[in-house]
Amino acid sequence: MALDQPRNLLRARDLGIDTHSEPVVFLRKDSPVCRSEGLASHNRVLLSAGDRHVIATLYQVQDGILAAEEAGLSAAAWQRLGAPQGNMVRIHHAPPVESLSLMRRRIYGHDLDETAYQEIIADIVQGRYSAVDISAFVTACAARPLSHAEVCGLTRAMINTGDRLRWDAPVIADKHSVGGIPGNRTTPIVVPIVTALGLIMPKTSSRAITSPAGTADTMATMAPVDLDQEQIRAVVEKEGGCIAWGGAVQLSPADDILIGIERALDLDSEGQMIASILSKKVAAGATHLVIDMPVGATAKVRDPAAVKALSQGLRSVGDQFGLQICVITGDGNQPVGRGMGPALEARDVLAVLKGQADAPADLRDRALTLSAALLEMAGRAPKGAGLALATQTLQSGAAWAKFQRICAAQGGMREPPVSSHRKLLTAPHAGKLSRLDNRRLARLAKLAGAPDDPAAGIEMHVRLGDKLAKGDALCTVHAQAPGELSYALAYADANTDMFRIT
Amino acid sequence: MALDQPRNLLRARDLGIDTHSEPVVFLRKDSPVCRSEGLASHNRVLLSAGDRHVIATLYQVQDGILAAEEAGLSAAAWQRLGAPQGNMVRIHHAPPVESLSLMRRRIYGHDLDETAYQEIIADIVQGRYSAVDISAFVTACAARPLSHAEVCGLTRAMINTGDRLRWDAPVIADKHSVGGIPGNRTTPIVVPIVTALGLIMPKTSSRAITSPAGTADTMATMAPVDLDQEQIRAVVEKEGGCIAWGGAVQLSPADDILIGIERALDLDSEGQMIASILSKKVAAGATHLVIDMPVGATAKVRDPAAVKALSQGLRSVGDQFGLQICVITGDGNQPVGRGMGPALEARDVLAVLKGQADAPADLRDRALTLSAALLEMAGRAPKGAGLALATQTLQSGAAWAKFQRICAAQGGMREPPVSSHRKLLTAPHAGKLSRLDNRRLARLAKLAGAPDDPAAGIEMHVRLGDKLAKGDALCTVHAQAPGELSYALAYADANTDMFRIT
Repeated sequence: MALDQPRNLLRARDLGIDTHSEPVVFLRKDSPVCRSEGLASHNRVLLSAGDRHVIATLYQVQDGILAAEEAGLSAAAWQRLGAPQGNMVRIHHAPPVESLSLMRRRIYGHDLDETAYQEIIADIVQGRYSAVDISAFVTACAARPLSHAEVCGLTRAMINTGDRLRWDAPVIADKHSVGGIPGNRTTPIVVPIVTALGLIMPKTSSRAITSPAGTADTMATMAPVDLDQEQIRAVVEKEGGCIAWGGAVQLSPADDILIGIERALDLDSEGQMIASILSKKVAAGATHLVIDMPVGATAKVRDPAAVKALSQGLRSVGDQFGLQICVITGDGNQPVGRGMGPALEARDVLAVLKGQADAPADLRDRALTLSAALLEMAGRAPKGAGLALATQTLQSGAAWAKFQRICAAQGGMREPPVSSHRKLLTAPHAGKLSRLDNRRLARLAKLAGAPDDPAAGIEMHVRLGDKLAKGDALCTVHAQAPGELSYALAYADANTDMFRIT
Repeated sequence: MALDQPRNLLRARDLGIDTHSEPVVFLRKDSPVCRSEGLASHNRVLLSAGDRHVIATLYQVQDGILAAEEAGLSAAAWQRLGAPQGNMVRIHHAPPVESLSLMRRRIYGHDLDETAYQEIIADIVQGRYSAVDISAFVTACAARPLSHAEVCGLTRAMINTGDRLRWDAPVIADKHSVGGIPGNRTTPIVVPIVTALGLIMPKTSSRAITSPAGTADTMATMAPVDLDQEQIRAVVEKEGGCIAWGGAVQLSPADDILIGIERALDLDSEGQMIASILSKKVAAGATHLVIDMPVGATAKVRDPAAVKALSQGLRSVGDQFGLQICVITGDGNQPVGRGMGPALEARDVLAVLKGQADAPADLRDRALTLSAALLEMAGRAPKGAGLALATQTLQSGAAWAKFQRICAAQGGMREPPVSSHRKLLTAPHAGKLSRLDNRRLARLAKLAGAPDDPAAGIEMHVRLGDKLAKGDALCTVHAQAPGELSYALAYADANTDMFRIT
């Protein structure tokens, strides 16, 4: 099939277009290769530069941005081809992606075995699936539930196609939050509590994707988090744990790709959620995992039946990978802590660790409950005694001391920044605070500048059920620039029902 | 939600990028609107220019091709916004597309009613679904078969969201080929036969999308086909039928959008195929429809069980729309006629219409069978007498005379062009022709220049089962330029097993 005619060679040009993980190539409609290969927009084409290859989706361009002899590459295509600026790339019809026929088998009603998932996930990680292909795959997995065997096969395939961390210890503690609730920043509290008591907890976290702050963003206001694998190992060896950004290791890279499409479709299926969570944790080397599962109308998990099904699925698949799992449910109807935004959430964390009288009790209680579950699972505390042990470790200052040592080991502790521009929002009338719109509160924090401006965000002064007089404080908007502040305030003015006062 | 801050206004620029029906907007990552709205690649955004709006998929650009205050638009976004060159477009987060929650209902196992399909299809036609959304929709419809009621609902929604032709006659004949077989150009023979016998058959056809020729491409080598609705009506009023390009009318526009994604996924589901075929035909005003269904290993329909299921589905849904349907199966293992490419297929058509001794018998027989079915269904011939009547109409020259009058009414008959460069391919060894690879034969014809060069393509000299000596003629490759010819020949050299001689 591969005929190396001169017309198949075009000059590579980086267009710097972010198409996520999907490689895209832009060609002039009148370019010789489109003509001779009979290429049309949305065709999949094979790009080759030297010994590097990538399958890309083609968009045809009328004229203007490209010369006829140029091939414009998206960021993903450019990286996979090794940045061939000015060099020639060969362009052909893409060879068929064999695993797509396996995907179609699942659409047509057949279960797939582990080998099939291995082929599909390997092709997805290699960038051989278009966004349209991945959408069909995640839909096929949601439209007919994955069997237990399929979830195990998918999980293993996701583990196998990424990096894998190995630790020289029988118990490796880990924690995962099912998400959906702003400000739920328990990790920087749980890690020092359990490591102060001798557990090993090498925690890697993500930066914000759609929220005002990820754990890595919050932690970055207190210590360096951008550690490579060697540095992570050194910190864990010294202190028993770390709170680092996960970017240096590629744990279950398929997960990020699948989640990108699932989020676009707003599609959650139990099987994929289990494979997503557990593949990352097994790849990280975890043996004991506590899962924080907020339940509520706007949370990811909405009712007790969903909690039960998801918990059972997690435990039965975890068993297959030697991973002990404990699921802790909690209130998913309002933010945890007071801050939304990296530095504001860090202040909550520090208040809890330092045992300040004004520390947010909900964040403290949640972190203690999660720590207790880990301590009991790992045999560091008898059943029922975990909470007392965790509480004592926090109250004694041992956790705070450990946190400072971890920060020092990661490169040095620092003070979270403080915002330069603030505005208090107050209750427009008296009444009871009956509902908070978490989604719009998060958006307000982002408009104020979070997470790019680490000091920006929202500081909440109320909780559900509070009785308010007209003019009582609701929240303070923090920003780094007057423009951001006024923009956020305009949004708040137009959306006063974020706080429902009845 | 819609705050009209100056930073939401960017200067529109047409990038001329063909992203099919999906509107796409390109913005600089550092543009004020991305920053303040918290926009990320793959987000869906609402673009507004004056009173026109479009929902587009966002790709972020590092720098280079766009200025920070520019919004680059794909061709589809540009057209829907009314080509606002240099004018300002407002950019906001897209409002939620409500019908996506209906689509998710189907993914999660619920049937949808007609109202739901109406909302989904209307949003798809309005460009509110991304390619990823449409992929999920077609996958959801394939992963759990559509019920009869759902197929009817989907069909009606597809009819309602496009143009609809109405004819002042009780019987309107139409024909559809399920496709997959090159050269199956029966329409220009069936239309003159049945209209010579008094039936009304206002036939609109498509141009090639992935094949070396569509019926409209073939017909265009003999007469003008680019007729507007008025012209189509005038031709049909005068001659009882036409063979025109369907581009002037938007019959079931959702169909083209869905097919684009189904083709990318190589996904066929019975329900969607039925809705696809019947929505176009009901919208065209048909009352009696003959369906040509080639059956074979590389055809769309592969075995008798599939024929039976699809035929029953077509008839039962057709009943709901007052459409009588007759399905005619035939050999789907090799091309029909000798030519592949617009002019070469036209020569086959003309040979049959003129009753030439060397006319391809398979094309002639197929056209007669389809005509006979239409004549019997419409009551123009008693059951069993249709074939004799059709044959007589062809042999007497009445069909040929009618064809010439139709061409004259469409703007004047012309001679198909003749290629300037040819090359005969011969058998490399003796043996029996046991298999033809239709897909690669079609590709060879396209590499030779079809359908853009109407004279280009392949002329077959053999049929399955032929006994060949070494050096016997297999096919002639026709091209308009030496470059195209040599490129096609290089492909033929590398793919000699297109003709399997055993």
